[in-house]
Amino acid sequence: MSVIQQILNHRSIRKYKPDPIPEDLLHEILQAGIRTSSSGNMQTYSIIVTRDQQLREKLLKPHMGQKMVVDAPVFLTFCADFNRMRRWLKINEAADNFDNFFSFLIGSIDAILVSQTVALAAESHGLGLCFLGSTLANADEIGEILGLPKNVVPVAGFSLGYPDEQPDLRDRLPFSGLVHWETYRNYSDLEIQDIYSERDNIGWQRYMKSKWLREQVDEKGIDNLAQLYTEVKYTRSSHQDYSRKLLTYLENQEFMINKGD
Amino acid sequence: MSVIQQILNHRSIRKYKPDPIPEDLLHEILQAGIRTSSSGNMQTYSIIVTRDQQLREKLLKPHMGQKMVVDAPVFLTFCADFNRMRRWLKINEAADNFDNFFSFLIGSIDAILVSQTVALAAESHGLGLCFLGSTLANADEIGEILGLPKNVVPVAGFSLGYPDEQPDLRDRLPFSGLVHWETYRNYSDLEIQDIYSERDNIGWQRYMKSKWLREQVDEKGIDNLAQLYTEVKYTRSSHQDYSRKLLTYLENQEFMINKGD
Repeated sequence: MSVIQQILNHRSIRKYKPDPIPEDLLHEILQAGIRTSSSGNMQTYSIIVTRDQQLREKLLKPHMGQKMVVDAPVFLTFCADFNRMRRWLKINEAADNFDNFFSFLIGSIDAILVSQTVALAAESHGLGLCFLGSTLANADEIGEILGLPKNVVPVAGFSLGYPDEQPDLRDRLPFSGLVHWETYRNYSDLEIQDIYSERDNIGWQRYMKSKWLREQVDEKGIDNLAQLYTEVKYTRSSHQDYSRKLLTYLENQEFMINKGD
Repeated sequence: MSVIQQILNHRSIRKYKPDPIPEDLLHEILQAGIRTSSSGNMQTYSIIVTRDQQLREKLLKPHMGQKMVVDAPVFLTFCADFNRMRRWLKINEAADNFDNFFSFLIGSIDAILVSQTVALAAESHGLGLCFLGSTLANADEIGEILGLPKNVVPVAGFSLGYPDEQPDLRDRLPFSGLVHWETYRNYSDLEIQDIYSERDNIGWQRYMKSKWLREQVDEKGIDNLAQLYTEVKYTRSSHQDYSRKLLTYLENQEFMINKGD
């Protein structure tokens, strides 16, 4: 299968066989990951490979109870990491740096690029995975469980194992809604409605399979998918809470946000 | 060539043939990109494909004069984009959200994952590319040139075209320095020195090919690679400036940082 065919066949996998991933295969896909380009070739990331059952059970709560964390044999956490680099600076009597917002983003980009390389390397060997956004949302609690020192912050993570399901391809927004030619061309209201028309139907049907979401829809008088998103799934107050929590954690981890710094 | 072999063969390409990328090939690799997983399948990113020569010449300055921007036939800019989503919320009379720090990071992760998928899809067809960190450092000026509306921020970008060089594989830090088993295991000073020992030599030799860097080394009495990094290449004051500039731009683009928000 070509690289592009493999990419077009991607599904997030939420059900796994109990089979462990052979040690040499795990090494092979991680070795591929670390060939990824990084800012200034600084490689300001770390990959944490968690196989221990008890540890994955501890990770379950900050991952919001998503069972893939315990059902898959491996959980990978990709972290922005300037701890290693700053330790190297200190040993070499170099000027300190990288305890700032820009560095946090540089490390995050490094880590996220690596995560997608590892994901595609893993899928090329028949493994399945599911990225969990909870890695970022609850970075502080996950960092505590994984014993992260200052200047290390989890930004992406996925469960990994052999698939025990073959779900349908998930819908995507149309190409023309995601790609701009030359410069950004802003959308008319009609274009927005067109871009989301398929999603409005498919997404709604998908979520209405959940009894809890159906109850929420009735209770709150929700009419459409957009309202379901911001009145139930991703509320303004929850996102403001996550923003504050992350900003506090970044300061604790010595990525200083203060604009006047 | 297998996916993993392709990944292991990755080199950043800085010299390009003038040949344009066929339209259907460009579509194919971007179509592959949009199959990438995203947070809640929201796909909060946009891809901007810049081929116009005059536009790429304008992009050259914020990309710090890196000639790949004008020498390669295509420049791709990957943006965190909550403009599309918020417009959809408004049309559907849904509660507003996503004008916060957490959302900026979610959109960034979506965009960066897509960028690496597109990169690997492109390389599978013999194209070469070079990620430019200047995309983030000068996101504000690049956003201005690309006409980005509020709630859209460039986070990753690369030049793309047919390679006109075959550079050696770049060195990488050793596997054991980047991968942690079960939890994070912090490094002893000796381990740090060991992790960076090859880099200390190879990186130094690489940079000493530049006359300007040799002059800086003499002038500032620099002894080693670590000092070269933070006393010349990535100074504390430049990173604090970039941090401030980015935080200001995020607020301007309606991703509010204020912790008390």
